[in-house]
Amino acid sequence: MNWTLASSASLNTNIQQAAEARQAQLTKPAGSLGELETIAVRLAAMQGSEQPKVQQPYIAIFAGDHGIANEGVSAFPQIVTGEMIRNFARGGAAISVLAKAQKAVLHVYNCGTAYPVEPLAGVTDCSIAAGTANFLHQPAMTSTQLEQALAIGQKAIEDAQAQHCDVFIAGEMGIANTTPATAIACALLNVKPNTITGRGTGIDDKTRNHKINVIEQALQYHRAALTTPLSILQIVGGFEIAAIAGAYIAAAQAGLPILVDGFISSAAALVAVKHNPSVRDWMFFAHASAEPGHVVMMQALNAKPLLDLGMRLGEGSGAGVAVSIMQHACNLHNQMATFAQAQVSEGKAAH
Amino acid sequence: MNWTLASSASLNTNIQQAAEARQAQLTKPAGSLGELETIAVRLAAMQGSEQPKVQQPYIAIFAGDHGIANEGVSAFPQIVTGEMIRNFARGGAAISVLAKAQKAVLHVYNCGTAYPVEPLAGVTDCSIAAGTANFLHQPAMTSTQLEQALAIGQKAIEDAQAQHCDVFIAGEMGIANTTPATAIACALLNVKPNTITGRGTGIDDKTRNHKINVIEQALQYHRAALTTPLSILQIVGGFEIAAIAGAYIAAAQAGLPILVDGFISSAAALVAVKHNPSVRDWMFFAHASAEPGHVVMMQALNAKPLLDLGMRLGEGSGAGVAVSIMQHACNLHNQMATFAQAQVSEGKAAH
Repeated sequence: MNWTLASSASLNTNIQQAAEARQAQLTKPAGSLGELETIAVRLAAMQGSEQPKVQQPYIAIFAGDHGIANEGVSAFPQIVTGEMIRNFARGGAAISVLAKAQKAVLHVYNCGTAYPVEPLAGVTDCSIAAGTANFLHQPAMTSTQLEQALAIGQKAIEDAQAQHCDVFIAGEMGIANTTPATAIACALLNVKPNTITGRGTGIDDKTRNHKINVIEQALQYHRAALTTPLSILQIVGGFEIAAIAGAYIAAAQAGLPILVDGFISSAAALVAVKHNPSVRDWMFFAHASAEPGHVVMMQALNAKPLLDLGMRLGEGSGAGVAVSIMQHACNLHNQMATFAQAQVSEGKAAH
Repeated sequence: MNWTLASSASLNTNIQQAAEARQAQLTKPAGSLGELETIAVRLAAMQGSEQPKVQQPYIAIFAGDHGIANEGVSAFPQIVTGEMIRNFARGGAAISVLAKAQKAVLHVYNCGTAYPVEPLAGVTDCSIAAGTANFLHQPAMTSTQLEQALAIGQKAIEDAQAQHCDVFIAGEMGIANTTPATAIACALLNVKPNTITGRGTGIDDKTRNHKINVIEQALQYHRAALTTPLSILQIVGGFEIAAIAGAYIAAAQAGLPILVDGFISSAAALVAVKHNPSVRDWMFFAHASAEPGHVVMMQALNAKPLLDLGMRLGEGSGAGVAVSIMQHACNLHNQMATFAQAQVSEGKAAH
């Protein structure tokens, strides 16, 4: 897993300065496009181009099941993970609809489901096992399985590059996966489970209390071994979460901008950045999840998400919406006239 | 001006219930698309269609100059209003770029500029006067001028309907127009100018203090006459703000959904809703403006804007970005598979 520690690609600071200078000359009061200006300038620095673009998103959905689901922490049965893989492939899921609207490449990486899934177009079977082990009693995965999961993410970035994509979005599907994501946040940020455990797909108060107990017990049981971001990922994580962490690291190393989705993806982002801090420079954050633990993760990542629409679906759906914001930012940067071009007088504030 | 008091079109509650029922059957945890679900359901009720759509936005930019600009309350010279009208027409402004990306109809209504503007394609000359009067010393406009300005907005809605547009966006251009918009908010909501006056296009502390004094003096001078929403609009408003208020009222009466932009548009929305409360049902709110007075207006309108990106440009630019959110909401509502169609198992929470 040594590859995961290699530095991320460098940002082009000359281009960044040129992009900042251009923003100051566009026909608008300085700074009046707010975060849209920041997005365009950051993308220019990442892409080494004065004309940044987000025309071809790559949306990789990593799916996997979780042994912890046996503890009854989710509102949905585990068979839904595989059923949703079929739904992604057939175009009926939220992220399928968004990918179509964005003209994005959508590809599913099956990291290992509890119930078998037949071969499907648009789905690569990378199954590591029929779901992780139940981390209430043993590590969710072995060291070898963690390595395999990280490599699935690395492979997804190779696929994205082979298709000349210009922004990377990870989505996920895995019944019960807010439980490992919450456990990761608690272990990495030293936060108590009762302060950040949420309702996932919609559990009631009683089930939420049970979910808190399960996470508390698991963290207590494994406490001596939860020493590094990767050990936490291995012990209380999931195949799809590890694949996303691997993908983020590989994307940053390859110089591919990342748009992080919601709660599960942010847990993977947190692991990736804690393990290899250079990855952070390559990340945009799509939306504030309705899961209560997301705020804590965003603070730890020093991130302000682009959208706050009360979404809590996963699949990459928040990023599938937010990519439009990045596209508008690029269009404005590239296509607006300068004061000189438009013969518009500048303000006192613009000098 | 009696037309402005007629009721808005009715929402179709049968279709609304059908849309809510459909949302509950789509392959996602109930409520997990957050505000995107609300948008789709509201649009369905407005359009009387189980397949709501936002495919053809009409973006009307109302431009006008302000006598109050003579008090030195803006960072930009007044000639910029006309210069920006040319920039809109030539495609170089932010809203021009966004309109192109959204395949929207963009049309400028010149309500009266201080400097003459030659005939331009895409610009209708509706000039009432060469800007409003300086409301520090007299009402910004006469009763007749207010009627003319409201009618410009009404005409814009006729134009939008003639082109079969499915959502209405008002933008504005008028150097110094955060000053009348702030004065309107103060008068309508009984708020002190020093608590909500902002920096507009980017004025310094000294100019901001002067701007506060100007607004305070004007409100004091006219206090006996500031008795109704329309009298406030006439006395401390502007031609373009009145045109937007008229357009919002006419849009709601015509059954055309409205996407309100930022600070100036929200001042017009506030006048429209205070004058004719039935208009509120037809409004979506695009973005939280960086102008400090916007929060107060959103509270008064019981509105939560879709975006919060630190924008403060005007022109309809926040709405030009946010219309993408509405489009995604429609696509998801219309195109996602139901649990039954996709053969996906439902969760306990979904029952």
